[in-house]
Amino acid sequence: MGYEVLGVPSSKIVSRSISRNVVSEGSRKYVPRRTLMYVPGHDLKKLRKIPILGVDCAVLECEDGVALNKKSEARENIRMVLDELKEVKGVDIAVRVNSVGSQLLEEDLRVILTAENRPSTVLLPKTDTVKDIVQFTDCLRSILKDSALPSYCPRLITYVESAEGLINMKDILRRAETFSHEGIYHLDGVVFGADDFYADIGAVKTLDAAELTYVRQKIVTVAKAFRIQAIDMVFTDYKDSVGLQLQSEQGARNGYTGKQIIHPNQIPIVCKAFTPSAERVEWATQLIAAFEKHQESGEGAFTFQGHMVDMPLLLQAKNVIQTIKNVHKA
Amino acid sequence: MGYEVLGVPSSKIVSRSISRNVVSEGSRKYVPRRTLMYVPGHDLKKLRKIPILGVDCAVLECEDGVALNKKSEARENIRMVLDELKEVKGVDIAVRVNSVGSQLLEEDLRVILTAENRPSTVLLPKTDTVKDIVQFTDCLRSILKDSALPSYCPRLITYVESAEGLINMKDILRRAETFSHEGIYHLDGVVFGADDFYADIGAVKTLDAAELTYVRQKIVTVAKAFRIQAIDMVFTDYKDSVGLQLQSEQGARNGYTGKQIIHPNQIPIVCKAFTPSAERVEWATQLIAAFEKHQESGEGAFTFQGHMVDMPLLLQAKNVIQTIKNVHKA
Amino acid sequence: MGYEVLGVPSSKIVSRSISRNVVSEGSRKYVPRRTLMYVPGHDLKKLRKIPILGVDCAVLECEDGVALNKKSEARENIRMVLDELKEVKGVDIAVRVNSVGSQLLEEDLRVILTAENRPSTVLLPKTDTVKDIVQFTDCLRSILKDSALPSYCPRLITYVESAEGLINMKDILRRAETFSHEGIYHLDGVVFGADDFYADIGAVKTLDAAELTYVRQKIVTVAKAFRIQAIDMVFTDYKDSVGLQLQSEQGARNGYTGKQIIHPNQIPIVCKAFTPSAERVEWATQLIAAFEKHQESGEGAFTFQGHMVDMPLLLQAKNVIQTIKNVHKA
Repeated sequence: MGYEVLGVPSSKIVSRSISRNVVSEGSRKYVPRRTLMYVPGHDLKKLRKIPILGVDCAVLECEDGVALNKKSEARENIRMVLDELKEVKGVDIAVRVNSVGSQLLEEDLRVILTAENRPSTVLLPKTDTVKDIVQFTDCLRSILKDSALPSYCPRLITYVESAEGLINMKDILRRAETFSHEGIYHLDGVVFGADDFYADIGAVKTLDAAELTYVRQKIVTVAKAFRIQAIDMVFTDYKDSVGLQLQSEQGARNGYTGKQIIHPNQIPIVCKAFTPSAERVEWATQLIAAFEKHQESGEGAFTFQGHMVDMPLLLQAKNVIQTIKNVHKA
Repeated sequence: MGYEVLGVPSSKIVSRSISRNVVSEGSRKYVPRRTLMYVPGHDLKKLRKIPILGVDCAVLECEDGVALNKKSEARENIRMVLDELKEVKGVDIAVRVNSVGSQLLEEDLRVILTAENRPSTVLLPKTDTVKDIVQFTDCLRSILKDSALPSYCPRLITYVESAEGLINMKDILRRAETFSHEGIYHLDGVVFGADDFYADIGAVKTLDAAELTYVRQKIVTVAKAFRIQAIDMVFTDYKDSVGLQLQSEQGARNGYTGKQIIHPNQIPIVCKAFTPSAERVEWATQLIAAFEKHQESGEGAFTFQGHMVDMPLLLQAKNVIQTIKNVHKA
Repeated sequence: MGYEVLGVPSSKIVSRSISRNVVSEGSRKYVPRRTLMYVPGHDLKKLRKIPILGVDCAVLECEDGVALNKKSEARENIRMVLDELKEVKGVDIAVRVNSVGSQLLEEDLRVILTAENRPSTVLLPKTDTVKDIVQFTDCLRSILKDSALPSYCPRLITYVESAEGLINMKDILRRAETFSHEGIYHLDGVVFGADDFYADIGAVKTLDAAELTYVRQKIVTVAKAFRIQAIDMVFTDYKDSVGLQLQSEQGARNGYTGKQIIHPNQIPIVCKAFTPSAERVEWATQLIAAFEKHQESGEGAFTFQGHMVDMPLLLQAKNVIQTIKNVHKA
């Protein structure tokens, strides 16, 4: 380990990515979502158990996990439980609304956002086109205007669940990023909705998901180009813990930051796979220490272990530390 | 199994994809092409055997399978055989013309389209650029105008055979879709021309084609984003039936709907791999039954097995049934 | 083997790709880069050993291999050694400058281009955006103008080292190709900077690099769409010669034309993997012979082994021969 501070005016050393709004990302606290679990909105008992689940992100579910005749009940439950739970330490309280195409989205938002304790994250499924993200944003903006809640700015996570959504992913995220800079929400991640994706392209699922290598790796790569989280596919056979572990580790190697979960049994295995290794934590700790020392000394470019370090890498180090902190708290 | 009909005005439940011209696709009968076999245009004997082959799609070949000095003979044979064969039950009679760059395309179309029984499908190889699809369309339009055949609207299948064709694929299909909406042809599928692709990028073929995972899976994904068929690579070693079976099953898992064939021996193996499984047929049958019952009852969103069903999924179910019907007829 | 010359006016047989500036590429001699090795600019002893290394491309390194406090020394060494070495037969003498974002690029170019024997190839790392390639080009143009060196037109190789660089790759190369046509430089290849890429997306490296299949295969495909070289990832464990061999062969099967090297021990293994096979050389030899015979006879389309041959394939054949020639000389 070693770092160097050199006599180059710091104003001249502009890391290639600082100018790309990563600094503003840095000003928001990183929210780890190694485990993202759906809790059906119509099931009040399960909703109330969220604080003891031990997940990073609990999703109060309005969409596919809720039958059409229970949508209304689910909304009311979610509004109530949001206020009951208030903040749960170390848990991101999220709501998955229905898609733009469902015609249920507006009512979802209208009911849920009347909670005093509004969700910190909104999940938007089936984001297939730029039009979808525009319509969602217009809808959210209009409701916030009506209800005079100007200070609310949730984190937003979109879903890739179809071939169309994949080929439009870059354009969709670019638009969402623009809205994000306007302060309507904070674009924070993308979820790979694999089951709908399989159905959409008529692919057949196998244990190692080799048939979706292209899709799965493209999603994580595009997400990372926007410096947002990427949350991996559901492993549906909740009794197969070995299969779950292998798929979780594969996702983590691909660069995913977390994974969707459909059963509490899956939490410890998935959590472990997406927890940074001891070496990674050591690296992050040293990098941050070196950076702080360098900041004190004032001038010069920042290098670590012989390499010039750019801001994205520093943020990654901070995210690693933020993630590891969630371990001890859960 | 179960479906629900709820009191939501159906006008409000607009599936996310209905607006994307899938309905018009639905109005055309689905043509299964599990097996797509080339028959060289200069070989009259082979052309006449098409009715007994048992392929879903018989390609009367003008391009790479025909030497330059036999192009003219091939065109004449094809024109003649088209009229001899007329319709062959359960077989899509297609013609592969020469590419736009060959300077042979116009003559191909000019001769072949004088047949009384014109081919139901035209295959356009080496579609590398948007310019290629525009020039093809202009050529077809001009010939149809000259020959006063206004009612002819073939299905069109394009080829991805080069890196350039792949990076332009989305733009090419988008343009072809626009022409399709204008009624010049009906864009129906894409073929992966793997041998030319290998040569184009200097890749080396292995048995599991791992070196083209990205290309092969991208092609099927982009095709499905346009809701058209994707037809997989040729398996060149026609004596290796085990290898053929594995590659066919791999293609089917990837979401391909069929495969190119170069020898009659390959037909049964490939046909089987791309025939929907019993479970899939059962799913499709029940979904369609549920939808018809729901249509009778009139109002409400359509859900099946607890999920809201959108139009693309219903069309997939119909395609499954249409495909399975071809089994019993062949 | 066999080829045919037919009575079609050659003016009518325009290969699909000739119009895409491949001819101008053909007029430049192909420079094989099976092995591309970095030599740190601050290490004068190593720089002077370049002629005995036996690499196809020797990279005089200013960037990550040189600590910040040695950048100035590295530049001066490189300028000096360029003039000492002059031309080394069969070796492409390249310089890797610092990235646009580093603020060191201008000084790199300003010092190094004062050498009388300027580098034949410039390598530009961390080309993440179109803006990066524009700024680099502006910088190069401005320095050449100042220094009155109008006749210098280096080959240019860019790097994909981040998710952002990957999703912008097509646009970046398109812009670089435009500059290339203006004669500022000759766009010649792309390098996959895997280590930075792993760090950028938070992926974890395994021996077979399965976690970057999408990235690695996309890079070679896009590069080939622009008809430029693709140079594969570094194999970091320089003691594992079996692992190196497997990864080199894998890269060659993917279509890569060469590989980065960090230790002289790696040269023979990598060189062998990227040297065309005897069958490939035989194919190229026959194809070129057939083409030359066809050129003599004058008229007609050019076909080989029953297929019409387009210009890219002929260039590939020539590149094969050019590459094999480097074997005997090294």
